[in-house]
Amino acid sequence: MHDNDFSLFQLSLQQRAASVEMLLSELLSDRPQSGEITRPPRLLAAMRHGVLNGGKRLRPFLVMESAALFGADNSAALRVAAALECIHSYSLVHDDLPAMDNDDLRRGQPTVHRKFDEAAAILAGDSLLTYAFELVASEATEISAQARLSLITELARSAGIGGMTGGQTLDLEAEKVKPDEQGIIRLQAMKTGALIRFACEAGAIIGNADQRERECLAEYGSAIGLAFQLADDLLDVTSDAGNMGKATGKDVAAGKATLVSIHGIEWTKRQLSGLVEQAQLLLEPFGEKAGLLKEAARFIAERKN
Amino acid sequence: MHDNDFSLFQLSLQQRAASVEMLLSELLSDRPQSGEITRPPRLLAAMRHGVLNGGKRLRPFLVMESAALFGADNSAALRVAAALECIHSYSLVHDDLPAMDNDDLRRGQPTVHRKFDEAAAILAGDSLLTYAFELVASEATEISAQARLSLITELARSAGIGGMTGGQTLDLEAEKVKPDEQGIIRLQAMKTGALIRFACEAGAIIGNADQRERECLAEYGSAIGLAFQLADDLLDVTSDAGNMGKATGKDVAAGKATLVSIHGIEWTKRQLSGLVEQAQLLLEPFGEKAGLLKEAARFIAERKN
Repeated sequence: MHDNDFSLFQLSLQQRAASVEMLLSELLSDRPQSGEITRPPRLLAAMRHGVLNGGKRLRPFLVMESAALFGADNSAALRVAAALECIHSYSLVHDDLPAMDNDDLRRGQPTVHRKFDEAAAILAGDSLLTYAFELVASEATEISAQARLSLITELARSAGIGGMTGGQTLDLEAEKVKPDEQGIIRLQAMKTGALIRFACEAGAIIGNADQRERECLAEYGSAIGLAFQLADDLLDVTSDAGNMGKATGKDVAAGKATLVSIHGIEWTKRQLSGLVEQAQLLLEPFGEKAGLLKEAARFIAERKN
Repeated sequence: MHDNDFSLFQLSLQQRAASVEMLLSELLSDRPQSGEITRPPRLLAAMRHGVLNGGKRLRPFLVMESAALFGADNSAALRVAAALECIHSYSLVHDDLPAMDNDDLRRGQPTVHRKFDEAAAILAGDSLLTYAFELVASEATEISAQARLSLITELARSAGIGGMTGGQTLDLEAEKVKPDEQGIIRLQAMKTGALIRFACEAGAIIGNADQRERECLAEYGSAIGLAFQLADDLLDVTSDAGNMGKATGKDVAAGKATLVSIHGIEWTKRQLSGLVEQAQLLLEPFGEKAGLLKEAARFIAERKN
């Protein structure tokens, strides 16, 4: 492990996070925008609480770094990154609801329905989801009309019934009937994998990459998406609530089947190493420019929270 | 009142409803589409229950008739109409939730969270909302890339914090602090008005109308949107649950301020007549082609359920 590279990656992740946070804070201001009648303060506050929460902003980082591989305009990539973070955040706001995972804490802060109420959390999630599509469709970006439409199509597919919300449904069902190994893999590819894969593919779309390059980035996204979930399952059994900023040991307590519960901790660590290697190999054609994305794969697999 | 015209309108409304219902049923089939991993059956069933429910399909009718004014391709308009109905249906599914209006019945059928469960209703709503944007972005339409992006932008603005979800928030707050007359008008323009206005403007966008025509259709949409809500408030005090297929008298029971509660039934009926006249005047430039849209204004103001 090269400590210098790792620090460079973390610095870059923080910089990207700060820029996406700043843009989101500006966009979610109390000034109504063209075509809007007014922005009700309580709904806006609930949206802001849901999205401006000091998250790692890993998905925005992946969009921006992937786009940079192809020399894409930075502010265009930033806007798509912000939209993706709105989608990711909405999914957490709804996932935390009493009818879903019933969580009181998210990154050490009260969840939206605990700080406001359930209705506000439902509507804030809906509003963030809706706003994400407005952001990508908007004229304000340097992205061609055709590329914006591709981004919207892929984003909706990754987030909808055949992707994230489908995966959340399978996840809830898995608490009642334990899925087999293939079932777990499919569930995770949908619930968390699809959006991470989209993040990487989005960079290629923004950068007008050719089909081969776009598939390469999507494959890289699939590999690190799977690594992300394996690391998450591993942390659920090895970490404590202080590190995670949310409840841990929940999977075990709920008797939930994960690849860790089937194959054990050592197998999972070997899998993670393999996925990092695979992800990094996929980036070889891009040479040194892909250095931070290679580090991202390692960070995802080895993260402690 | 011309009974023949009225019948022609109702026949046309039913035909449009049948075609949008057929398209939605095809689109929401159990075959996963490109980019989707699988469509979990229970989530799909909840989405279908939420959207294939024998609604009047007024918004799709408005999209299709408005587009027809400009000679737009019918299948293109149908697709946008289906997307809009997904958004309208998602809003009802979430609005019916225990944390929101807590309704057990919708058009005489159990609401989604009653037939399935709360988590399924939250996720089905999220999935319908997401799917709507995929439908409009899709290559499958004859609509230009630029027009599709305008549609997505306007749809998101109408449905988001400055439109529908903002209006739902104001509506929930109105149960605690009664808004004044201006507050009620604004709330209703956002909660129900924005999407009806969008339906009419969408037809103009699909049909490549010029700016003046587009504004004309949007204004028409605003007038009938206001009429729609006034008629709804009136029905709440004059109708019974059998006619409406849902609970009535709820506004009065909740002590909710409406324009009817402020100004009374007779004033409301006069307002409705005025709005129908205004809406019909806005369509004069389009001559006979706008006949069904003129009838639509009357239907909305005089409907019994």
